[in-house]
Amino acid sequence: MGVDEASRWSRPPTARGRRTREQMVEAAAGLMQARGIAATGVSDVLTATGTGKSQLYHHFGDKRGLVLAVIDHQLARVLGAQPRLGPASDGDVAAWADDLLAVHRGGDGPLSCPLGVLSSQVDDDPVLRAHQAAAFDHWRDGLARLVSRGRERGTVGAVGDPTVLAGALLAAVQGGLMLARLARHVAPLEIALDAALLHLGVHRPSPSDRPPHEEREV
Amino acid sequence: MGVDEASRWSRPPTARGRRTREQMVEAAAGLMQARGIAATGVSDVLTATGTGKSQLYHHFGDKRGLVLAVIDHQLARVLGAQPRLGPASDGDVAAWADDLLAVHRGGDGPLSCPLGVLSSQVDDDPVLRAHQAAAFDHWRDGLARLVSRGRERGTVGAVGDPTVLAGALLAAVQGGLMLARLARHVAPLEIALDAALLHLGVHRPSPSDRPPHEEREV
Repeated sequence: MGVDEASRWSRPPTARGRRTREQMVEAAAGLMQARGIAATGVSDVLTATGTGKSQLYHHFGDKRGLVLAVIDHQLARVLGAQPRLGPASDGDVAAWADDLLAVHRGGDGPLSCPLGVLSSQVDDDPVLRAHQAAAFDHWRDGLARLVSRGRERGTVGAVGDPTVLAGALLAAVQGGLMLARLARHVAPLEIALDAALLHLGVHRPSPSDRPPHEEREV
Repeated sequence: MGVDEASRWSRPPTARGRRTREQMVEAAAGLMQARGIAATGVSDVLTATGTGKSQLYHHFGDKRGLVLAVIDHQLARVLGAQPRLGPASDGDVAAWADDLLAVHRGGDGPLSCPLGVLSSQVDDDPVLRAHQAAAFDHWRDGLARLVSRGRERGTVGAVGDPTVLAGALLAAVQGGLMLARLARHVAPLEIALDAALLHLGVHRPSPSDRPPHEEREV
């Protein structure tokens, strides 16, 4: 970190500065989710927020810094929607899965993950790629907490390292969402989650009890 | 199909015409895998193959037709690398998983799926999206054949619809590969496959018997 950078960060941010930063991150996150990272220019974010280049460089340094903040923002959104992964987790894996499915089920569910959609777009930049990997590790650690708590409470039967079990669960969520998005139906996600929960020793209704798999538009 | 199109397709393709078509598809597939579909122009494919616009439009109609051919090409590559999914499947799910892991393990494995990388890029075009979904259905049907055959031969213990079991297996492959690509290590794919195989009632060595998870460059 250079002298200029150190002095920049030593200035305590004002409430207004924090709010401007937040607006820029939200606008960038929305644009990057819709168009992709490469197709979102710094100028698009400035136009959308009515801010200037100097503010953007003050808060983020450069476009890469902005993308790092977007990854953090999407991780916070994803974890905010899954309170059962937090420190107060009740270990109810089946309820966690039902909550996740509820978000994606029905005619207007997103059938995509705000964090997952960024993954293929950060592949060429080692800094962004490592930050994205760390975000998924953080999510997996929350899932490991859910699994551990479930085991303490007797709702999870599987033995083995909770981090490994959580890794398999996270892969099921991401792969299931990718296939669900293509199929325009939540069924592939349900199937992936059912299998992952059986593997954890958590029992839920089988997919055959659910409505048939019909494509929908999103 | 219009009259022009019908008469175009009624001309039997020559061996040379087929070879030109194949070269164009291979070049387009390579460029689209490296740069993405949007960043690959028709002119890039023409330059790479030394062909002209009229040949491209003769063989594919338009860029969308070329992308449809690229999806078919990548599906054929993916299935060609998994002979155990074909009609002569021996039902050995553990060997299928080991073959898949062998492709991605070590310092120079791709840690990505030629078909999977296209998924997020066809989201806006309903024709491409449906074709991509059908390609994954085809893959899943091959996995269902592997699972059915394994059940006949006693190597798969799980009951239930083979297509549903295969859907969970495919989600594990795709989610595991996405996380492995980010981590620059095959471990997340191994973890996802181990869980999927346990769910199928197929037993393999546990991930703890494998070397520790260290990042590598690809």
